[in-house]
Amino acid sequence: MTAQTLSVGLIGAGRIGRLHAGHLAGQIPGARLGAVADVQLAAAQEVAARCGAPVATADYTDLLADPTIDAVLIAAATDTHATIIAAAAAAGKHIFCEKPIALSLAAIDGALAASGRAGVKLQIGFNRRFDANYRRVREAIVAGEIGRPELLHIISRDPAPPPPAYLATSGGLFLDMTIHDFDMARFLLGGEVTSVFATASALTDPSVAAAGDVDTAVVVLTFADGAIGTIENSRRAVYGYDQRVEILGSTGAIAIGNNHANTAIISDRGGVRRDPPLHFFMERYLASYRAELSAFVEAIRLDQPTPVNGADGRLPVVLGLAAERSRREGRAVRPAEVEQQAALPTLA
Amino acid sequence: MTAQTLSVGLIGAGRIGRLHAGHLAGQIPGARLGAVADVQLAAAQEVAARCGAPVATADYTDLLADPTIDAVLIAAATDTHATIIAAAAAAGKHIFCEKPIALSLAAIDGALAASGRAGVKLQIGFNRRFDANYRRVREAIVAGEIGRPELLHIISRDPAPPPPAYLATSGGLFLDMTIHDFDMARFLLGGEVTSVFATASALTDPSVAAAGDVDTAVVVLTFADGAIGTIENSRRAVYGYDQRVEILGSTGAIAIGNNHANTAIISDRGGVRRDPPLHFFMERYLASYRAELSAFVEAIRLDQPTPVNGADGRLPVVLGLAAERSRREGRAVRPAEVEQQAALPTLA
Amino acid sequence: MTAQTLSVGLIGAGRIGRLHAGHLAGQIPGARLGAVADVQLAAAQEVAARCGAPVATADYTDLLADPTIDAVLIAAATDTHATIIAAAAAAGKHIFCEKPIALSLAAIDGALAASGRAGVKLQIGFNRRFDANYRRVREAIVAGEIGRPELLHIISRDPAPPPPAYLATSGGLFLDMTIHDFDMARFLLGGEVTSVFATASALTDPSVAAAGDVDTAVVVLTFADGAIGTIENSRRAVYGYDQRVEILGSTGAIAIGNNHANTAIISDRGGVRRDPPLHFFMERYLASYRAELSAFVEAIRLDQPTPVNGADGRLPVVLGLAAERSRREGRAVRPAEVEQQAALPTLA
Amino acid sequence: MTAQTLSVGLIGAGRIGRLHAGHLAGQIPGARLGAVADVQLAAAQEVAARCGAPVATADYTDLLADPTIDAVLIAAATDTHATIIAAAAAAGKHIFCEKPIALSLAAIDGALAASGRAGVKLQIGFNRRFDANYRRVREAIVAGEIGRPELLHIISRDPAPPPPAYLATSGGLFLDMTIHDFDMARFLLGGEVTSVFATASALTDPSVAAAGDVDTAVVVLTFADGAIGTIENSRRAVYGYDQRVEILGSTGAIAIGNNHANTAIISDRGGVRRDPPLHFFMERYLASYRAELSAFVEAIRLDQPTPVNGADGRLPVVLGLAAERSRREGRAVRPAEVEQQAALPTLA
Repeated sequence: MTAQTLSVGLIGAGRIGRLHAGHLAGQIPGARLGAVADVQLAAAQEVAARCGAPVATADYTDLLADPTIDAVLIAAATDTHATIIAAAAAAGKHIFCEKPIALSLAAIDGALAASGRAGVKLQIGFNRRFDANYRRVREAIVAGEIGRPELLHIISRDPAPPPPAYLATSGGLFLDMTIHDFDMARFLLGGEVTSVFATASALTDPSVAAAGDVDTAVVVLTFADGAIGTIENSRRAVYGYDQRVEILGSTGAIAIGNNHANTAIISDRGGVRRDPPLHFFMERYLASYRAELSAFVEAIRLDQPTPVNGADGRLPVVLGLAAERSRREGRAVRPAEVEQQAALPTLA
Repeated sequence: MTAQTLSVGLIGAGRIGRLHAGHLAGQIPGARLGAVADVQLAAAQEVAARCGAPVATADYTDLLADPTIDAVLIAAATDTHATIIAAAAAAGKHIFCEKPIALSLAAIDGALAASGRAGVKLQIGFNRRFDANYRRVREAIVAGEIGRPELLHIISRDPAPPPPAYLATSGGLFLDMTIHDFDMARFLLGGEVTSVFATASALTDPSVAAAGDVDTAVVVLTFADGAIGTIENSRRAVYGYDQRVEILGSTGAIAIGNNHANTAIISDRGGVRRDPPLHFFMERYLASYRAELSAFVEAIRLDQPTPVNGADGRLPVVLGLAAERSRREGRAVRPAEVEQQAALPTLA
Repeated sequence: MTAQTLSVGLIGAGRIGRLHAGHLAGQIPGARLGAVADVQLAAAQEVAARCGAPVATADYTDLLADPTIDAVLIAAATDTHATIIAAAAAAGKHIFCEKPIALSLAAIDGALAASGRAGVKLQIGFNRRFDANYRRVREAIVAGEIGRPELLHIISRDPAPPPPAYLATSGGLFLDMTIHDFDMARFLLGGEVTSVFATASALTDPSVAAAGDVDTAVVVLTFADGAIGTIENSRRAVYGYDQRVEILGSTGAIAIGNNHANTAIISDRGGVRRDPPLHFFMERYLASYRAELSAFVEAIRLDQPTPVNGADGRLPVVLGLAAERSRREGRAVRPAEVEQQAALPTLA
Repeated sequence: MTAQTLSVGLIGAGRIGRLHAGHLAGQIPGARLGAVADVQLAAAQEVAARCGAPVATADYTDLLADPTIDAVLIAAATDTHATIIAAAAAAGKHIFCEKPIALSLAAIDGALAASGRAGVKLQIGFNRRFDANYRRVREAIVAGEIGRPELLHIISRDPAPPPPAYLATSGGLFLDMTIHDFDMARFLLGGEVTSVFATASALTDPSVAAAGDVDTAVVVLTFADGAIGTIENSRRAVYGYDQRVEILGSTGAIAIGNNHANTAIISDRGGVRRDPPLHFFMERYLASYRAELSAFVEAIRLDQPTPVNGADGRLPVVLGLAAERSRREGRAVRPAEVEQQAALPTLA
């Protein structure tokens, strides 16, 4: 790759696609937004106009055929990810794909094989790895500030459950929401999970149980070296997005708290209070979306491995499938047990 | 009971017994230390002299035969608790007994039956229920400040593992250490556990594994209403005693932090820091030991139920036995499954 | 002094006297409450009965004449302190006296001369020096943890203004309330003040201005080495007692926060909140009152200097008089300028 | 003003000018960087090339003569501000000028008169008003969350003193550093200062005293309604930029803490610690520089008053001159006393 500006084509102009487009419009050194594709042409045109992209299309294969496009950013519906990855790889485009790659391991494996054959760069959108808080935790572990990790606790709670229509195609809590936490556990501890136990309830809204899904869950992960991790998920933390982690190590512990829009503390007759934490992921993780894209562009420009590769995209899905089986069977499940599974089990 | 001062006989003049004796020597309104018994007569005499008790003996049955003694406080070795409870009950003495009542359900059931027949008051020493932090959490739940509890997380870590000799008779991590957390989960949520999952490792010191025990554990509790609790235990938090809890409810969350000897914060080139939390339970829970004794004396004087009764003493042992079975079998265990168990399974 | 128990006679059975009596009834090793005097005999009798003192009298000279009394604790009205000190010293009793010694330097000097001539121990009740937070700050400075102190900021706010009757004889804000902060500034920095500037307002209640007093004040202290201190006082912090200090040093800074009854933090739609700080000095400084008395007893028993001597009691009064003059004249005042002042200037 | 993009010419391509140029290159909706002037032509060219400005010049009057330039942003040396303001106003350009306008009131008054005659918009660069923390404090006061403000405390400390060359032309601590705090006091309390007292020392480095300047200062401000404010300044807080404020009001208090790059807290044998706060103003106030520029552009586009006008730029200089006189004379100084002063008194 030369020092020329990388032209990135966006595929999918929904909420997260628009976020990435805004970043590509001037905040990612070395890259620019080259085209926008969305099955809703008007959406593609709106984003292209606002962010200065010269091309808007309803057909993403137009981007793949465009020789001026160096890379694609896939932010379309989850069930299209694997197909688009394979097509983009065949067209020789580098690929940034939102998580999850797919909800079935067969589909994932097909996509990874295609990108591997083509020799293009592939990065999966686990943006939280690029957040300053989590990054500091990882630094502490690498630097030995807390010794050998022994207990990990991840708290990940959304402010409110998504609409029923979203739940229907989400893949269920473990593949839609916990998947970020599975990735985080692997990223922070730098080791692989040997056993998964999960238990869950549907407590927030009747629509969740009606969709055969759950909204309140605990997952226990055991690692090869004896470390144990827990993940606490809820679809409803009324005070706002709750994104924390704690790790106990052999010589210390590290914990991160939530981010707030300001540091003001008010004391009155009622007590001592501050404003709630940042409300949801668009506010909370804004900088990390920019940072992951910069890292992707850098990996292409320097021809280095991407920081979140295909295997990193696949393993959280394995853990999600194992968690779902564990929840149904009331026992700890080894990841290997779900490796043969070709498709997501039907919920409920 | 009249307004006369209650005379309490202490059985067991070890570390925790001496702590209680000091409180009875002037800090528990309506009570006084009437006698001290310990198999080491010199220890009994030392405590009696220091705390102003008129009687010291190596034989606790002397206290039971003494008509001026109204109640006994059992702080002897765990394996003597059940026998002493039965004997004290038969002698008509009210009973305060340190946890656990016993390590086997058969022994516990015998002791509870004896105290029930005698109609004496029985209180078990789950002192943390009387700590200001945990009490505030319970108040919040009762007052509806956070709605219906959905996720509970208890962190309970000791600063350093106990000596091998202690481990040998401790009953294992779940019955020695987690037992406090089982009680706390029941106390805070006010509900009963329907399923227990546990996983654990021995990571801190080779002597732990050598004793067939573990030192790092996660226990997941599910409750009848769908709430889920996790307990994180470690025998080694090098920064000091770590005693926290968090509960997510349907309309809010509550969390308690550690207690510190002072509030000073120092900022220098290295960062912003404060002194470690209070080091261990004698510093951290001092006030709660006094408060539980006051509550015991109050229950006798007003002829009201004790705040931590025999059933409260028994159920955490059931949960501990279930956790141990879960750990061995890699599956969630219902408390009913261990109800028939007559004795603690041999460790390792 | 032998190892015998020191018998302390309490003079003044008001709020603070009763607090000290409770401590002397069993919580101060090496001391006991030997007698209680109060011009209201019933008050003396009530305290004596509750705390086990064998003698109650309306005439404090009875205590001075009693050869079994080793020391007196003066908690009577401020305008009697100097006279009682002189009489107690003449009777050979060691003396613990609440602050301030008197509102005029002439009266103070008379009392100090009398105690000096008699060679008895004299300790003034600046209890905050014995509080764990302030003590930690002093330790940091002595240990060089923040280098040479350069800026000191003391925040000292009461929850609510006292009743008008109290204000009438209080000596004004600077001698009644700021006096503790003057002592704290000297204690923490270990140096002497060379200049005082003060400005103040009456903002909380019309009764304050009506009494010729102020309730909201800032005092600036300059020290010989160039360090500068500020004191912020208010008679009304509606959220509770606010007692903090911050010091910037050449290599770091230290700050102490308020004390709370618990560490619980509640998050809900309204934000993140905790209960207010401890409400007032009886809750906040309870342990320090016990500690200062233990230190007094220890100084007598070991025949060592008391930790807060007569000069320590006198200098804050000098600074209070200087602050009052500064407020009136709108300029910085040197302590030496008020040394000749024989009496407190009439307020307003 | 139409909806056309506003073309802004930058005058002064030093550190702060480059920061503004970066923002104008794509982050200020409705504005673009139209030209760059700097007496060092190379600096102007470098910034223009990097930020996409079509014009670079060594002569700022080129910008004033350019009809495509709508507004100028003055980030040149302080002693040129007044002259450039007058020239830009005469050329009909809107003006954003870094603080302070000038170090003498005569120069300021000339500049303000010129801009007033021309009817152009003028905004002064008190960026901290646009910071989320301070803004939240102002909101709380406007919304009545703490009642009527009574005590204000501003802590403003730099990490390290500037080089001697900077000090020589800075105007001294009060006009260079405290000036931001004077503005903040006015902004937060929304009232005017009636009296200023200041005391200061030179403690950090011999070069400060050698320059006739001070580095450690306390300023006391009294307001017409009886509220009292204190400002604590130091040129050396070794732990990093310390930017806080606290206000006590009649029904509550509000305080803001420092900003940190992450929320991580590490506990180990040494205690509980976090990384130091953001190091200096470029990190700490980055977002506020962008926000003030957006507000300036918005004021022009909507033809509304700028949020920080000429009087807001002048009054902090008055307070700085009053502080300097107070420091020299050891007395409180009314702002009116320095209104006649035509020039800054020579330092030392």
